[in-house]
Amino acid sequence: MKQCNVAIAGLGVVGAQTAQLLLNNQSSYATKTGANITLKAVSARSKGKDRGFDISSLHWCDNPVDLATMDDIDIVVEVMGGSDGPALALTKAALSAGKHVVTANKAMIALHGMELAKLAEDNNAQLCFESSVAGGIPALKILREGLAANDIQAVSGILNGTCNYILSTMEQTGRAFNDVLSEAQALGYAEADPTFDVDGIDAAHKLAILQSIAFAVQPNFDNLSITGIRAITDMDISYAAELGYRIRLIGRATAAGDAGVAPMLLPMGSALASVTGPTNAVNYEATPVQTISAMGPGAGAGPTASAVVADIMDIASGRNTYPFGRAAKDLASQSGNTSTAAQSSYYLRLRVTDEKGVLADVTDVLNACDMSIETLIQKQLEDGKDADLVMILHEASSENLVNACDKLKTMSVVGDMSLPMAVQK
Amino acid sequence: MKQCNVAIAGLGVVGAQTAQLLLNNQSSYATKTGANITLKAVSARSKGKDRGFDISSLHWCDNPVDLATMDDIDIVVEVMGGSDGPALALTKAALSAGKHVVTANKAMIALHGMELAKLAEDNNAQLCFESSVAGGIPALKILREGLAANDIQAVSGILNGTCNYILSTMEQTGRAFNDVLSEAQALGYAEADPTFDVDGIDAAHKLAILQSIAFAVQPNFDNLSITGIRAITDMDISYAAELGYRIRLIGRATAAGDAGVAPMLLPMGSALASVTGPTNAVNYEATPVQTISAMGPGAGAGPTASAVVADIMDIASGRNTYPFGRAAKDLASQSGNTSTAAQSSYYLRLRVTDEKGVLADVTDVLNACDMSIETLIQKQLEDGKDADLVMILHEASSENLVNACDKLKTMSVVGDMSLPMAVQK
Repeated sequence: MKQCNVAIAGLGVVGAQTAQLLLNNQSSYATKTGANITLKAVSARSKGKDRGFDISSLHWCDNPVDLATMDDIDIVVEVMGGSDGPALALTKAALSAGKHVVTANKAMIALHGMELAKLAEDNNAQLCFESSVAGGIPALKILREGLAANDIQAVSGILNGTCNYILSTMEQTGRAFNDVLSEAQALGYAEADPTFDVDGIDAAHKLAILQSIAFAVQPNFDNLSITGIRAITDMDISYAAELGYRIRLIGRATAAGDAGVAPMLLPMGSALASVTGPTNAVNYEATPVQTISAMGPGAGAGPTASAVVADIMDIASGRNTYPFGRAAKDLASQSGNTSTAAQSSYYLRLRVTDEKGVLADVTDVLNACDMSIETLIQKQLEDGKDADLVMILHEASSENLVNACDKLKTMSVVGDMSLPMAVQK
Repeated sequence: MKQCNVAIAGLGVVGAQTAQLLLNNQSSYATKTGANITLKAVSARSKGKDRGFDISSLHWCDNPVDLATMDDIDIVVEVMGGSDGPALALTKAALSAGKHVVTANKAMIALHGMELAKLAEDNNAQLCFESSVAGGIPALKILREGLAANDIQAVSGILNGTCNYILSTMEQTGRAFNDVLSEAQALGYAEADPTFDVDGIDAAHKLAILQSIAFAVQPNFDNLSITGIRAITDMDISYAAELGYRIRLIGRATAAGDAGVAPMLLPMGSALASVTGPTNAVNYEATPVQTISAMGPGAGAGPTASAVVADIMDIASGRNTYPFGRAAKDLASQSGNTSTAAQSSYYLRLRVTDEKGVLADVTDVLNACDMSIETLIQKQLEDGKDADLVMILHEASSENLVNACDKLKTMSVVGDMSLPMAVQK
């Protein structure tokens, strides 16, 4: 039987779970792949730490980059994290040495994916990163192989479990963002520094990867428009519900070139709106298959290790794919700006001084920017002085929306203004 | 570039759509696979029929089995249907000649899968049937490759779009089964002879395939317990809704050996309950990934052709897999009976004579069979003589349920009895 030797760099929860899967399932994996997949070497920060399994029979490297040059290693698993530094150094060294690399590192792939894909091709090595997008969902395999026959029109989804947990908990409990974030941190759903999650950066890393495979473009993180969820208030969640919508952080890229991450209003009954807690979901709109959706846990040791080992088993089985679905030379470079041509309906809430003529003034400003109100809720506040104007606006370009918001902000009667959010009908 | 020549047997809607995809996307498919996939030959019942594209440049065979022995064909696509006859003859002949076979034929694979898998292995050919299960959803690829690292606990789903259309339309309109079936036939959602769909046979063919891949067993259609939806009344749908459930035809196989297709009550908010119309859905419960779900169109020319061409592209890319995820010798044979050890909660409706002591008599019979009522709706009918006892019963074995139903039927006060249905909590 073919021998396939694996080294793991990083023994955090994902690395440890990956190691245990490989150690405990060698014979069943051999039956499925026709290869004897053997964990041979590991590298981590602390050799002595108890990880719940015995590493004494494995070769230990203090420096992860040393794994790249070990003679009898076929696949290097990079689960250390960080877009640069040791992760990038190890990945480059391993690919250069003709070793296959399996990584869960979305930031590294989103930022250095092209360079690494070329390096893999040049050295006849595979570069696999299924676990980098949507955790346990085989989101890249579905897109790259399962839907390979299709023209993709759009790929979208809930790509960050932390944000989805926060938004759905705010909705279910009526609590404020900061309060729910603190709880999520205590529960381990959010990092001590939540920036990557709540500011949409993590979701954008994943979207850059999905976009590249879906539309045959070079991954270009810098090209994405990114809005996180810090500005979402419990008030907006409750108004959205009154209007029949739920707010979700959605990453979406289209064949027309639009690509971004932003909170959106989704109809209450839609598949993505029904996704609660730290679950991820990916929607593929394509011809001729129509719409395919996949849902599952977007993070955590088990789901991530499931995807890491699936990549290892693909390589061990001899199932080769280009990292981004095509050779690097067949990926188009992206222009500096995403398209802003797409029209959307928008949600906007204005806190205004409750006096005669305000609504007329607001509609005048909107009209001047070619925008108009489709649905309106007007609510007097308890102080008797202010009111909320909650609007769903008819379809317009994002350019017109930005113009209108800029003008509305200058009006003396307009106080607080919500984050404007696209509405999916 | 590697050349990969394809022949298609059957030019119905799926065959015609497959042909058009291959003819129209040759260069994009070459970029993705590294192979020049070329449609060379076709066979169908009528050569002259207008199918919306030009077949004059393609080699024509009157007898589909002749495609198996054409020298320059690498992949034979079988989309004629029928578990035996020409489809089986062609598949055997093609595999015996060392040609790869891609088929959408769930009945053939469910009934002859083992024999064909062995034939494929013996001749170093691939046998692919992604399109046979859940239409456009890459349901087999997700299970066999995407979740390859996992121990599967259960695979379940909505595997027949016709039944799901009928059940969700009955629910939305309050109309009766026969009425909605006739409409579905008129709309082309159901066949003139609806037996395979509404009696659960089509779903069971698909379940036999999923079960084999999930649990490393030989596909064994005869082993499945199968109940269709003919006995579902609008009354039961409405009572189920009152209790917070929706009725769906569910195929489910577990690691414990249970495998069957039957209507079930699912909680209103659950992912599968929210699937309406002809959509399919598959749920995978597995360790360590937890639960992954996929949804999409379960039938139709576009979705099915999408999966057929994905198989062709896998073969053209050199991505080999065993048909059922392991070599034929590694698939266990199944014993004659599925396990009946699993406990379930059940829904049961009895029409009874509305007189004193009836409920006490019914509960006595249930008690004698080790069963008890969890939730009860008692409704007097308009005639004043009869009443409905609608019950959710506490968890019990299916053996106890059958005993209890047999005894209840002999009671003089019990008239009509609903199909007893498992309830998912």
